Order: sequence, then C-alpha cells, then structure tokens
Amino acid sequence: MTDDSAPARPPTVTDDYLHNNAAYAARFRGPLPLPPARRTAVLACMDARLNVYGALGLAEGDSHVIRNAGGVATDDAIRSLTISQRLLGTREIILIHHTDCGMLTFIDDAFREGIREETGVKPPWAAEAFADLETDVRQSAARIRRSPFIPHTDAVRGFVFDVASGKLAEVDLLD
Amino acid sequence: MTDDSAPARPPTVTDDYLHNNAAYAARFRGPLPLPPARRTAVLACMDARLNVYGALGLAEGDSHVIRNAGGVATDDAIRSLTISQRLLGTREIILIHHTDCGMLTFIDDAFREGIREETGVKPPWAAEAFADLETDVRQSAARIRRSPFIPHTDAVRGFVFDVASGKLAEVDLLD
Repeated sequence: MTDDSAPARPPTVTDDYLHNNAAYAARFRGPLPLPPARRTAVLACMDARLNVYGALGLAEGDSHVIRNAGGVATDDAIRSLTISQRLLGTREIILIHHTDCGMLTFIDDAFREGIREETGVKPPWAAEAFADLETDVRQSAARIRRSPFIPHTDAVRGFVFDVASGKLAEVDLLD
Repeated sequence: MTDDSAPARPPTVTDDYLHNNAAYAARFRGPLPLPPARRTAVLACMDARLNVYGALGLAEGDSHVIRNAGGVATDDAIRSLTISQRLLGTREIILIHHTDCGMLTFIDDAFREGIREETGVKPPWAAEAFADLETDVRQSAARIRRSPFIPHTDAVRGFVFDVASGKLAEVDLLD
C-alpha cells in the first residue's frame, strides 16, 4: 500500500477478455454433449466483423465453427470437416465469405515474396488470396465435394455475408 | 394453392440459420473497419460448445477468430495469423483448447488408416490429435513463436476452456 510499489504490467486486451469471461461463466450452464446438436459445420472467414454465433443465431452446442483467413477450404479446413463428420456426426456444411474481405486486397506471389525479402524465408504455403468472392466460395465447395475424406457433401451451401447489412446472400454453387 | 402441389424440400438446419440471420440483420449496424479494433487474434477449437464471442465478450469488429479441429497451430493457422498480423495489424494472440475435446479420443495413425481402408486414400495430413490439453496448448504456442512468418510473439497466451463451467484457465507456457 505504498506509492512507490513496482508498476504493474499494463493491462492487455487479453486481460479485458478474461474479465469478460468471468461474467460469461457466472451465467453459463454446462456441460453439453460433445457432438453438435444441429449436426452442422460452418466454415467462415476469420474476419472480426463476422460474428458467426450472432449472424446464424447459434446457441452453444449447436454447430462446429471452423475459421481461417478467407474462409477457404484449405487442407486444414478439410481435416477439420473430416473430423467433424466422421467422428462427431455432422451432415450439413455452410461456407461463409464476406464483403470487404482482406483476401481481396493482395496477391499471393507479392505477399510471399515480401515475407521472403524481410525474413529470408518464403512461406511454403499459398496465402489463398482471391479476386472474386463468389468464385472463391464455389472453389471451396468444389474442394469439399472432390475430397475423398468428407463423406457427406450433398448439403453444402455457400454464402457471402454483407458487412454493411449483416445479411447472408446465397451463392449459386452451379451444381 | 392446391393440395397436390409438389412437396417442398424439407427444411434444413441451414434454412433455420438463414431465418435467424434475417433477425440478426434487422438489428445490425455496419459497416465497421476491416482491421480488428482490439488488435487481437484468437485461435480456438471448432467445438460447438465453445462460443468464442460469448466466452470472451467479443463485439463485432474486435478480433480475428481462427478455429480448427483442436485449435492447433497448424500451417493453415500460421497462415491466418501471418495475414492477421502483417496485413491487418493484430498484436496479441489468444490460444484456446477446451475440456472434453474430441481430439483426446483418438490417435492419428488409426484415424488415417481407417480412412484409407474405407476410401482407398490415406489423408496426406496429420489429424493433429493429442493426449494432453496443456501440452498441446504449449505445442501450439511453440509453433507460433518459432514461426519465421509471425512478427509479434511477445503477447501469446494460452487457455483451457472448461465446458462444464464456462471458465478459461490459463496454461503456463513455460517460457
């Protein structure tokens, strides 16, 4: 209780979120079963403005939520969907890209080359940037349908979330 | 308006979620800026019971949310974190695994061999199952810190979410 005690580490965003978690836990009711109750998996972009729980009205326990830069059906997303369907019983897949996506603002080659120039190491992965939202939703759907590992691909649907209106617009997957 | 019209396709879970989206959009206020306001990225398991927005008190626009089976720092998660920091200015990283995780219930070799027996094709990726939650949180943190592509790794923290209580317990990353 002195004025000259060592200064505390300044609070971080993570600290704020832990404070929020205490309030969440106080009203939390668990546990729920491990398999998703609605037997659905969502693959969406990591974008901060796309609140998947809010935008789809998900409750805890309803659906798997897989997210990465772009919401792209990368090999890792295929891994997650494979585990989701084969081990945890999901059957529907919802793909969500969104307007004003950062993945529209650069091209893979320049991004990877810039990292090489700065660090000396070029990423061994494609950055998965894309030039057109609907085309990339279709590309992700095609990767899922052609995957030998995902057993249930007859209920795959794709959407673009509008970050101005909050609305989902369905993409014709042309199948 | 006849009784013998063609039967409609039965409603799917996806249809229910689209109904929810209309209500969400009615109260939505956008657009927000593309870069996450709180300059933070979360990497969490896809588990349906882990509502990242609720558990951390995130508002739309606050933080990137990256999710996969296990919440593991795979190459694709590293890709997403690289884009998050280099192109969109995030600085803190929050790792979240959780109790009762499906990734604790199987081993990679048997899962991949089972898929080979059924489909004739063995997945070229590791399934990323793990035997201990805290050890795997540390493994993910180590992959992030050793990555040459992620510039800011001094604010990485790891947690286990308790699906019974809703609480986050911090993991000592032993650094």
